[in-house]
Amino acid sequence: MSLPPSPLSVGIDLGGTSLRLGLYDRSLDLLSSHSMPTRVAAGPQSVVDEAAAAIADLLRAHPRHHPIGIGIGSPGPINLQTGVLGLLPNFPGWDNFPLRDALHLATGLPVTLESDANAAALAEWKCGSGSTSGLQSMAMITLGTGVGSGIILDGKVWHGMFGMGGEVGHATVDPNGLLCACGTRGCLEMYASANGVIRLSHAVAESQQGTDALRRIVDRPSGFMPLEIAQLAEHSDPAAILVFERMGSYLGIGLANLINTLDLPLIVIGGGMARAWDLFAPAMFAAVHDYSVVYRLVAPSQRLYQEPDRTFIRPATIGPSAGLLGAGMLPFLAQDIKSNPAPPILEERFQ
Amino acid sequence: MSLPPSPLSVGIDLGGTSLRLGLYDRSLDLLSSHSMPTRVAAGPQSVVDEAAAAIADLLRAHPRHHPIGIGIGSPGPINLQTGVLGLLPNFPGWDNFPLRDALHLATGLPVTLESDANAAALAEWKCGSGSTSGLQSMAMITLGTGVGSGIILDGKVWHGMFGMGGEVGHATVDPNGLLCACGTRGCLEMYASANGVIRLSHAVAESQQGTDALRRIVDRPSGFMPLEIAQLAEHSDPAAILVFERMGSYLGIGLANLINTLDLPLIVIGGGMARAWDLFAPAMFAAVHDYSVVYRLVAPSQRLYQEPDRTFIRPATIGPSAGLLGAGMLPFLAQDIKSNPAPPILEERFQ
Repeated sequence: MSLPPSPLSVGIDLGGTSLRLGLYDRSLDLLSSHSMPTRVAAGPQSVVDEAAAAIADLLRAHPRHHPIGIGIGSPGPINLQTGVLGLLPNFPGWDNFPLRDALHLATGLPVTLESDANAAALAEWKCGSGSTSGLQSMAMITLGTGVGSGIILDGKVWHGMFGMGGEVGHATVDPNGLLCACGTRGCLEMYASANGVIRLSHAVAESQQGTDALRRIVDRPSGFMPLEIAQLAEHSDPAAILVFERMGSYLGIGLANLINTLDLPLIVIGGGMARAWDLFAPAMFAAVHDYSVVYRLVAPSQRLYQEPDRTFIRPATIGPSAGLLGAGMLPFLAQDIKSNPAPPILEERFQ
Repeated sequence: MSLPPSPLSVGIDLGGTSLRLGLYDRSLDLLSSHSMPTRVAAGPQSVVDEAAAAIADLLRAHPRHHPIGIGIGSPGPINLQTGVLGLLPNFPGWDNFPLRDALHLATGLPVTLESDANAAALAEWKCGSGSTSGLQSMAMITLGTGVGSGIILDGKVWHGMFGMGGEVGHATVDPNGLLCACGTRGCLEMYASANGVIRLSHAVAESQQGTDALRRIVDRPSGFMPLEIAQLAEHSDPAAILVFERMGSYLGIGLANLINTLDLPLIVIGGGMARAWDLFAPAMFAAVHDYSVVYRLVAPSQRLYQEPDRTFIRPATIGPSAGLLGAGMLPFLAQDIKSNPAPPILEERFQ
């Protein structure tokens, strides 16, 4: 007598430099994984074919498991209704590629597409910083090269009308600020990302508050990494400390607007720059306090409410694999939604 | 043989100057209404008792109807979980009053409490600017003395953790801007409200762009109304026109951040100041375009998506009775939710 096969899901994290694959069981334990360079220049169909071959290899090693589907986290913008990619800045020639259908054709498996920032948010919600509290709503802000964000409301990723919900990185935190590549002035992404820290480092180095140590790094012809500025700040260089204080202030303004709009119980801060948490968090919390009446009103000192605390803002706990794990969750979530449809909409009652 | 009684709901719009009552049938037709001054100084219990007496009078005139409950729209902040009022600026001595329980005790009817801005948003969604499109998500921004807002997501008012969701009026649109009474710098409410127009009128009058006509109104010792500035603008006074252009720009920045965050299909602009739509809307649309990459990306000219249009931004159609109508909808909505509970949360699956 043989046991029925256990379900597994295939997660794909599509990045500009590497494509990562993972097989997950129902408990979201990683059964196998594989990573390969993303051959962007070879074109999307070649990459899909390579991914399909790698998935077949991985699945062969798990004959007792039954693949229920593929989840893929992709850089945005994506049209989630059609599964077609938009104009991806780091993927020249990939625009309008029907990623979801192509992957389905190449593998025969159902495919659920999601933005990479939303996939990471799902992972932090279910398995990371949001998992202990049983919360049904939260946001995750990913501080990477840019600033991504994913918003979970009442247990579901909030997509908005065109799947563009959660572009908090492109909300303005300074209407007279620097012009972002997206065309908006003062986007959060211009300050609270890796590129933002590089930009702020130049500005501080050139100002009266610049130090010789900061200028030595910033003026290097070969460029520099934000990590170097963080190390300088950890060694108490006042100019480097100021860089992260400014970054934290801008981030705090963006979070304050998000809290005023949605009154969320939790915001998780992830991505590579979140490792500098100790350097930017004090200024971030100060700005959230200064700019969010909702944050201040629900604070216990105001005695407005009896609840234990205000919005929590915490660093992410999963790290760089959050996107892959979130992608691996998608097929299970899709299955759950299918077996528990939402109640019918009560439109008719008010006609 | 007698027909069973038809259901009706009682709506209450609690304002700082008047308290309005309305009886609504299932089709949301107004059966009867009554208005009285809100005797704020007499204290909340007296006002509740007066309201209860007036409701009893109204109900006596409709013996063929059965009241299913009371909906009340109240100024915020309110703790919607407990039904207790917060610190209402225009209701001194009312803080911590258990409005929901007091109204239930005085009438014997179930009571649903909601913020006035959320009640107005429900009315515009079901019966006003949002009703023709069958949309399940939208926001309404109410430009009154201050700026209120209500957000409807997937067919429900979004309350957030403490019922404070939708405080878009206190999101900052200028981190270096004027200090709001809430304690935040540059709140949208400081510019896009009746008081904001008064403030902007002073600033323009005192600037090089000021005109004699504007200064005559602004310098009047007895004060002035925003409507007078609007009339001046309609007569082509360049300074008065500039006031509304500035107001529209700030409003547009606030809307752009909301669109970037939630990618909503519709934003409805209501409240007294919305009557100046023709004066502020062009600058508002320009700022939304300048500050929202989501708005720009979904625009047809970008050809990213095939959908017919971007976020619609429209004036409200119901007018000042939206709050009362929305309050009257609450008991019917509460009944619908009870008879169609949401599916169980799928928490366990991922443990």
